[in-house]
Amino acid sequence: METITLTVGGMTCGGCVASIGRALESKNGVVSVDASLETGRVQVEFDAQSIDRGGIEAAVEAAGFDVIR
Amino acid sequence: METITLTVGGMTCGGCVASIGRALESKNGVVSVDASLETGRVQVEFDAQSIDRGGIEAAVEAAGFDVIR
Repeated sequence: METITLTVGGMTCGGCVASIGRALESKNGVVSVDASLETGRVQVEFDAQSIDRGGIEAAVEAAGFDVIR
Repeated sequence: METITLTVGGMTCGGCVASIGRALESKNGVVSVDASLETGRVQVEFDAQSIDRGGIEAAVEAAGFDVIR
């Protein structure tokens, strides 16, 4: 397993945090998601054989949020 | 052009409304999105040659929201 932490723009309430969690957890290879409304950080644990950072970032953007690089 | 109105659960702030709008507008064939925080309704105008109701509902769910049928 690998873990990355993304900084995500656009999470403004608990519903945003929940929706980004559901969007990521629906992706094959994502094991767990810990998103913080307070910090805007999203920590994602994943199986690198099934998904990579690019795929995770794409899922965040497909959910309508911005990945701040 | 066609227009459908979905009832969507999980939109709890303006950020949710904005993110669902961005998620849908990134889909090929979606022309416009009008999401209401107050009613939970999302009106989508689309080109039926490029996307259908199922594709739109799948995009809402991929964004981490629920389509209430």
